Amino acid sequence: MSAPKNDTLLRALLRQPTPYTPVWVMRQAGRYLPEYNATRKRAGSFLALAKNPDLATEVTLQPLARFNLDAAILFSDILTVPDAMGLGLYFVEGEGPKFERPLRDEAAIRQLVVPEINASLGYVLDAVKQIRQALANKVPLIGFSGSPYTLACYMIEGSGSADFRTIKSMLYARPDLLHHVLDINTRAVIAYLNAQIEAGAQAVMVFDTWGGSLADAAYREFSLDYLRRVIAGLHREWNGQPVPNIVFTKGGGLWLEDIAAIGCNAVGLDWTVNLSAARQRVGSQVALQGNLDPAVLFSTPAAITAQVDAVLRQYGQGPGHVFNLGHGISQFTPPEHVGVLVDAVHHLSRTSR
Amino acid sequence: MSAPKNDTLLRALLRQPTPYTPVWVMRQAGRYLPEYNATRKRAGSFLALAKNPDLATEVTLQPLARFNLDAAILFSDILTVPDAMGLGLYFVEGEGPKFERPLRDEAAIRQLVVPEINASLGYVLDAVKQIRQALANKVPLIGFSGSPYTLACYMIEGSGSADFRTIKSMLYARPDLLHHVLDINTRAVIAYLNAQIEAGAQAVMVFDTWGGSLADAAYREFSLDYLRRVIAGLHREWNGQPVPNIVFTKGGGLWLEDIAAIGCNAVGLDWTVNLSAARQRVGSQVALQGNLDPAVLFSTPAAITAQVDAVLRQYGQGPGHVFNLGHGISQFTPPEHVGVLVDAVHHLSRTSR
Repeated sequence: MSAPKNDTLLRALLRQPTPYTPVWVMRQAGRYLPEYNATRKRAGSFLALAKNPDLATEVTLQPLARFNLDAAILFSDILTVPDAMGLGLYFVEGEGPKFERPLRDEAAIRQLVVPEINASLGYVLDAVKQIRQALANKVPLIGFSGSPYTLACYMIEGSGSADFRTIKSMLYARPDLLHHVLDINTRAVIAYLNAQIEAGAQAVMVFDTWGGSLADAAYREFSLDYLRRVIAGLHREWNGQPVPNIVFTKGGGLWLEDIAAIGCNAVGLDWTVNLSAARQRVGSQVALQGNLDPAVLFSTPAAITAQVDAVLRQYGQGPGHVFNLGHGISQFTPPEHVGVLVDAVHHLSRTSR
Repeated sequence: MSAPKNDTLLRALLRQPTPYTPVWVMRQAGRYLPEYNATRKRAGSFLALAKNPDLATEVTLQPLARFNLDAAILFSDILTVPDAMGLGLYFVEGEGPKFERPLRDEAAIRQLVVPEINASLGYVLDAVKQIRQALANKVPLIGFSGSPYTLACYMIEGSGSADFRTIKSMLYARPDLLHHVLDINTRAVIAYLNAQIEAGAQAVMVFDTWGGSLADAAYREFSLDYLRRVIAGLHREWNGQPVPNIVFTKGGGLWLEDIAAIGCNAVGLDWTVNLSAARQRVGSQVALQGNLDPAVLFSTPAAITAQVDAVLRQYGQGPGHVFNLGHGISQFTPPEHVGVLVDAVHHLSRTSR
């Protein structure tokens, strides 16, 4: 395998010069695209879509057919790992993911084991291989996983949560139990991401979606320490090519220096962070990915272009910026506005270099 | 009117020495208390309760009968102001506040006016007077309002929101319209808080519940600038007594220095902020209020005491700390755990002085 023809994403993640700022969009294969909704309908459900490598390949490529994006990201769910652990992932329309057998007592927690990745998550690895083949080395493919703490949130709550009452009760009253879950999750996430890399993922991202719900000290103990272990366990190159990694704690702007210090190549930032201040805080330690407010895409082409310009100016000159939204794209986004975004990033960053 | 017998809250907000760290709890008169639920049932609805000065007085005092709290906070809703503007506040059980006539077009926005406080919000001022009488100067009474931006969120969305799509679309596409709403809200909030002070509130707090949903530059332009105007417009003393104010932007930890610089006496902090780092960032400019994770109260008395100790140690020695949660108390909190919290704050802070 060789480097992709468009290697701007990989170069930017490694803080190497690029002719323009690369851009991709979190959840770029998603419900704002009518072609995605058509494929999902054909699949019957979100989970059937995610578990079918042919269809996962199809939807992964859909946004690339429309927009001049600099990366593809594997279409999958962040909860495939706990599903492989036997917790029974399912979806209720309009309600988000749920587990049939959440971890609610010590006995269930003690029985948890790291799943055998090839046996239980082969469908993801097959999708990675098929997507790589379909991409024909045009742009790199990003693999991903939920973070150990974010997986634990869903595993223990049994669903999303507004207050994370169940997992936080455990965190404060029985930290030993939560550490046990996080240890198993960490080993599973490392094995899962390395298997994605071995199957062809050229960069990997860890989504710590719920780390930002934690108190400062709890974040360090229950999320960041495990993110550090994940990063330490990842392949840093494969088949002679570097495989950069990205860590994104939503709502984690206060901990930016600490995240940058765990050894990752890049840190994802949500829109509450000023990119110029962020860059000063991390120096040349990591690349930064982000951080346009996804709500900007609800406005007008002129406003989108102005806000893209503002984000690019905040980052300023020099390597190490991957343009993205500060969170996944909303299902209510007009698709043509993504085209405006992508073209504005390319045009404005190229002319300012 | 003279200073309350227990003036530790007011002294701490003004960064004056106190024999122990004062403590109160956001939403301390609320659904975790069976006596509150009984009064609410008698009132018929949340809104009927909030609009009845006798019942509002009753529930304001309920937590003080149980716990050794250092302040009372007016029982009311943050959306009384837009209700007084004619938007028609109502509640659907389990769904949070809604408005019958949200601001959805330019014509409606142009018709918006600052309400006449005495005429439209007299029930709040009556409650303040009655609560002061019932408190008999035992502890101070805190008045409050939503921030201009937070009020605008509900006024424009018509309800709470996960993504604030409607207001943010306006923010990016028609900032002039949003500024018009915010200007009116600001004048209304100033008049409302000053009327509360004139009726007897001895400190006031501005809840910027949704400021933290904004992008960095948008926060400064659409929330912080108006908070600054609110603070500049408030009475700083009344009847010869200082009336300190508190500004709380939930999720605003990244902007702490900027909030501290708007001229307020104290800044509220959620639990994601390290109090020791926060204190270094603001120096002696403001007092700090917070910031225990409300989820700690779901755990055990021993864990609660340990976490209270950790928060007190983070703040360290010297004046200017008001202990509180980092957000409103959950309805699922065992009431006796609030007693553990309050007693631990008093005991641990007194012995460490």
